[in-house]
Amino acid sequence: MHKVKIAVAGAGIISQQHLKAAKEVEAVKLVAIADVIREKTEKVACDYGINAYTDYIEMMEVEKPDGIIIALPHFLHKEAAVEAANRGINILLEKPMANIVEECDEIINAVERNRVKLMIGHIVHFSKPIIKIREIIQSNELGKLIMITDTRFNNYFKPERPRWFLDKKQAGGGIVINLGAHSIDAIQYTTCCGIKSVLAKLTYPDEYPGIEGSAQIFLELENGISAVINLNGYTSVKRDEKEYHFERGILKVTGEGLFIARKGQKEFENMNIVRNKQKDMVDQLTEFAASILSGREPSITGQYGKSIIKAIMGVYKSNETGKKIDLAKL
Amino acid sequence: MHKVKIAVAGAGIISQQHLKAAKEVEAVKLVAIADVIREKTEKVACDYGINAYTDYIEMMEVEKPDGIIIALPHFLHKEAAVEAANRGINILLEKPMANIVEECDEIINAVERNRVKLMIGHIVHFSKPIIKIREIIQSNELGKLIMITDTRFNNYFKPERPRWFLDKKQAGGGIVINLGAHSIDAIQYTTCCGIKSVLAKLTYPDEYPGIEGSAQIFLELENGISAVINLNGYTSVKRDEKEYHFERGILKVTGEGLFIARKGQKEFENMNIVRNKQKDMVDQLTEFAASILSGREPSITGQYGKSIIKAIMGVYKSNETGKKIDLAKL
Repeated sequence: MHKVKIAVAGAGIISQQHLKAAKEVEAVKLVAIADVIREKTEKVACDYGINAYTDYIEMMEVEKPDGIIIALPHFLHKEAAVEAANRGINILLEKPMANIVEECDEIINAVERNRVKLMIGHIVHFSKPIIKIREIIQSNELGKLIMITDTRFNNYFKPERPRWFLDKKQAGGGIVINLGAHSIDAIQYTTCCGIKSVLAKLTYPDEYPGIEGSAQIFLELENGISAVINLNGYTSVKRDEKEYHFERGILKVTGEGLFIARKGQKEFENMNIVRNKQKDMVDQLTEFAASILSGREPSITGQYGKSIIKAIMGVYKSNETGKKIDLAKL
Repeated sequence: MHKVKIAVAGAGIISQQHLKAAKEVEAVKLVAIADVIREKTEKVACDYGINAYTDYIEMMEVEKPDGIIIALPHFLHKEAAVEAANRGINILLEKPMANIVEECDEIINAVERNRVKLMIGHIVHFSKPIIKIREIIQSNELGKLIMITDTRFNNYFKPERPRWFLDKKQAGGGIVINLGAHSIDAIQYTTCCGIKSVLAKLTYPDEYPGIEGSAQIFLELENGISAVINLNGYTSVKRDEKEYHFERGILKVTGEGLFIARKGQKEFENMNIVRNKQKDMVDQLTEFAASILSGREPSITGQYGKSIIKAIMGVYKSNETGKKIDLAKL
């Protein structure tokens, strides 16, 4: 089997999830990793038997990989993606695609100019419970979808969080751009529908200007359905829960899996469909490798990644202005 | 002890909760009940050893009670309250105060003209977990309040629901005016703060025009804090849950009671403060009787009841127009 040579930019937590997944993808041959922290990159390179670099540009020049996984701090996404595209290297770019919409456009332009593949790492698309929800919505088996709620509690300011996350210039924002991106993605992906407008209220802890610690977001989808996202980053209580309300039932997905309550049922029933993050990473990388080998476009495009960033920019603007923001006019 | 003579208009479910509570209030002497359904009113009158009427006006004329509890279908609230006020009878008026703001004003005017007491039956104010939340917010012990969520699932279209609830002219609307009124009330009461603006999306089942079956409501309070209310009336799964998010913790209240997670705690802790609806009804009626005996104004005024109706009108208008509605401009 022909293998694609994959290099990785960034040796943080997400990067290591990609590396672990890569070991299970037959079509992938890992070749190198780059990170500015020499000890970290050498440790990872040693673990995986690949080459280590402290400069991802040097890595690209020397290794000439078929594809690069970009898992750098958010503010470096645009620069790294454009550099890769200009060298004809295909790109699997971690979410969020970039910090602002204009950077997404720069990436999209570089990718089109150089005719490389670009896939945005919206891992939610590979989550079994999420895929099942999408199927149930499309099948109409619970009738019309009425509304969606998405709730995430997570200590966003935990000491082990890398410090660049707490700097607006580097991270682009706080809990909204980092975790809210998944929530917005899941809403768009499951409903096959874009977001029309947002109204949002954020709060910021005194210590980290520009890094929002909580958000309540009211979304209206293009098809008129509403959704609410509640994000609380100040708490140690963990929650990750989505509910899809239909005319004839409710779907609920939590860390424990997918649950259904059909019309007339007083309790949720376990569908025994549970997320497997490692498997999701494998599926994602499998699709990326296949798109390089086959020439097919990856399913998660730059335009899609940009739509998430646009919604996030709408959220920030809504909080600043107090207004409901129509994304088409943003 | 001097007792106040209390008559009751309406013999439905809520009315019977009032009657049951009245037996426990020493300052109250129940005298009569009126309902258009003769059999029902006679049965209730017999159970409580009081007089039965099919016309509440006749009841007021004959019995000359000190106070009347009005627990009639929503569209009769205004008429009944004005008739009582004009006869110098003090009023405990069930929520929602009326179907529209203009009716609230008519009631307030009649009450002021006739110098009677008016108390709106916002029972939430007597709920122990709600009172505790209000105290914790005021004490600042969990730091600044950040956001609120309120979620209610309840089969709104169950066969045993009286049919007038499913007629817009009689009920004023659906799940928002009936259950959402409690949610809006709890948000205002616990925060000691009025509502500034609303954005809402409702859905309506085909069978009942004007009777909304679900709602997502984004509220901004006068102090800038946001809150979200999710109401789903299409399901048999029951839920009644409020969460108050603070800088240093979360409060959660469910049917099981009040729970707290202080900063750093990974799980909620039971505060062992549970709602007792019967006791709440007793406390409410005790306050009403005391206000008649002492001449003090009841704590839940007509202006307060009107503020809830105004917010609900804002919700309906927001859904119709797709706009965020500033209540001051309504």
